[in-house]
Amino acid sequence: MPHANTPNPQADSRADERAPCPTLALACALIARPSVTPDDAGCLELIAARLRALGFACERIDLGGVSNLWARRGSDAPLLCFAGHTDVVPPGPLEAWKTPPFEPTIVDGVLYGRGAADMKSSLAAFVTAIERFVAACPSHGGSIALLLTSDEEGIATHGTVKVVEALAARGERLDYCIVGEPTSVERLGDTIKNGRRGSLSGNLRIKGRQGHVAYPHLALNPIHALAPALAELAAMRWDEGNEFFPPTTWQVSNIHAGTGANNVIPALCELMFNFRFGSVSSPDSLKARCCEVLERHGLDHEIDWHLSGKPFITGRGKLVAALSGAIKETLDVDTELSTTGGTSDGRFIADICAEVVEFGPINASIHQINECIEVSAIEPLAQIYERTLHALLAA
Amino acid sequence: MPHANTPNPQADSRADERAPCPTLALACALIARPSVTPDDAGCLELIAARLRALGFACERIDLGGVSNLWARRGSDAPLLCFAGHTDVVPPGPLEAWKTPPFEPTIVDGVLYGRGAADMKSSLAAFVTAIERFVAACPSHGGSIALLLTSDEEGIATHGTVKVVEALAARGERLDYCIVGEPTSVERLGDTIKNGRRGSLSGNLRIKGRQGHVAYPHLALNPIHALAPALAELAAMRWDEGNEFFPPTTWQVSNIHAGTGANNVIPALCELMFNFRFGSVSSPDSLKARCCEVLERHGLDHEIDWHLSGKPFITGRGKLVAALSGAIKETLDVDTELSTTGGTSDGRFIADICAEVVEFGPINASIHQINECIEVSAIEPLAQIYERTLHALLAA
Repeated sequence: MPHANTPNPQADSRADERAPCPTLALACALIARPSVTPDDAGCLELIAARLRALGFACERIDLGGVSNLWARRGSDAPLLCFAGHTDVVPPGPLEAWKTPPFEPTIVDGVLYGRGAADMKSSLAAFVTAIERFVAACPSHGGSIALLLTSDEEGIATHGTVKVVEALAARGERLDYCIVGEPTSVERLGDTIKNGRRGSLSGNLRIKGRQGHVAYPHLALNPIHALAPALAELAAMRWDEGNEFFPPTTWQVSNIHAGTGANNVIPALCELMFNFRFGSVSSPDSLKARCCEVLERHGLDHEIDWHLSGKPFITGRGKLVAALSGAIKETLDVDTELSTTGGTSDGRFIADICAEVVEFGPINASIHQINECIEVSAIEPLAQIYERTLHALLAA
Repeated sequence: MPHANTPNPQADSRADERAPCPTLALACALIARPSVTPDDAGCLELIAARLRALGFACERIDLGGVSNLWARRGSDAPLLCFAGHTDVVPPGPLEAWKTPPFEPTIVDGVLYGRGAADMKSSLAAFVTAIERFVAACPSHGGSIALLLTSDEEGIATHGTVKVVEALAARGERLDYCIVGEPTSVERLGDTIKNGRRGSLSGNLRIKGRQGHVAYPHLALNPIHALAPALAELAAMRWDEGNEFFPPTTWQVSNIHAGTGANNVIPALCELMFNFRFGSVSSPDSLKARCCEVLERHGLDHEIDWHLSGKPFITGRGKLVAALSGAIKETLDVDTELSTTGGTSDGRFIADICAEVVEFGPINASIHQINECIEVSAIEPLAQIYERTLHALLAA
């Protein structure tokens, strides 16, 4: 395919208006595949075929009904990996969509379809960026990889985490990883996620002694026993955060006690709570401080803990410099680093990769009816990925 | 019927062993009628027939499926009223009973059957006590009345409260009232209830703003907002009680918030709570103090209040003196006054009666499988009621 060795955003951007550019074409081909989690619907094979033509070794690591692809070109360090997912969330009521969710449609310069922003345009941009880079630098330094899964939007137990385990088992390590999640907020390029907070959940049971409300001295009301500890935990300043992370938060999502009868003191009060924490606090330190409060208040309690994501952080190293430089060069946008939001597959990749960031299109429409991306954002996204490849792996 | 003018407890008690005494016989006849709330099953008519024979004017005030009896002998003051209910709670699983619950059966000197203690033995004792008293003092002073309902164990909206309303509407007032509830604890006669605490319930809704636990600054968690107010309310000393009432208590019976999902901050937290209060605090003062706490903590809230019973108290007047004297004379027991426990129909009667007490058999088995009363307690109970009649109404 004829690509200019030195990308020219202006020229390519105008080309979008005349004929489908390769990135847009591939994004549309992916959106047309209804790959609702965990069904890959052929997306991985479409991408793998393009990569094999470039000399990538493509390996499928499928298990538990989930399709995963690990593709690598080159064996030298450093290894720059693009990571993402082919699966999409369900479209919801079809009649609510302006256009059919699995028929990519451009209306007034906007491409509509489930996955348009999260994250099939990013996948397409990965592929065309790599194609252009390899065409320009067939003997590039280091190695290029793709790590794709069909289960990021679901329970994510057989997706990226399993590929990372397989890579770790054979001693493979990544140096740089860009996850194509839609991180931009107001305009393309304004935000890179250079980390994510961890998520630690607890199911708490406070035990009391049932009785009649007319005889509280013969009972032990677990709601009353809990109240001062709950007030203390809700007011607790867990840490002050740091350069990259906001202060740790603690939130109760559910509290339930009582039989429905208004004359019975219940025997049990159950809470579900969740910590979102940065790198200042550790799961163990948060557990210990939470339990100290409960114990100091003399509560007979049990907690089931679940660590659903450790925090990860990527400082201002070579990857952030290369990616934010590429954004500046392509769009003249000054990028902000952010660690807000929920968890992502970046938490798994960080186990075997020193520098992990997430970067992709505007996320305003994701998981919604009429998910979309501006057509004019698609080619610049590929150019940013391509320029990052040049910055990190040019021979 | 041949009754000794001066009751002799020893003689009558021994008589139980030889042949059914009239009180036991009537108690058995009432237990044999399966009068589960609100079904009277003929109990009131059985009693009314006995009272008519003594010259009582018997008036049925039936409404809403509930049977009520107002029976009066005499038109002078003072008016001593015996009050109670013919209805019983359901027997529960029949196979769990040693003997069929509606077949009164004496085993080893104990009478088993639903209602044996709560309160068909008291009703029988009312009737035989009155029969003996009228036989002894046909021209007694004052008046005697019975106020009976078939809905005390149920929602109690068409029972005693309606009879009291009807009596109040025509300006009828009681001077003394003995409710035959089973108040004895360890042995017959040890406890008179000379009042009951009031019961004030509230359904509280604390409103927040729903959101994701990862973005608590965009939400308002009603559980967290409530926590310090809940701690304060649970620790509150509402009053110190007085001679007759223990300190007022406040208990949360139910608390519910949350969608079940552990990543969603809920929009609403709902509580059910209940005050049990004596004569030191009023419903209005308790409401005001509760709301002051909620408002001071800045809570967006709503409360639905329900006053299910005002407190009532009967001091050491003529009724308490007569009844406790009768107990002492019959059983040589020193009676304690108590206001503990739940609500009773006494709360309604207190509206039209200066002195209301409750007195009846041991309550250990009430509302349970194998409800029972010692046969040897039945005749003394009638004697206590009879001696109280003598003390208050002898010509």
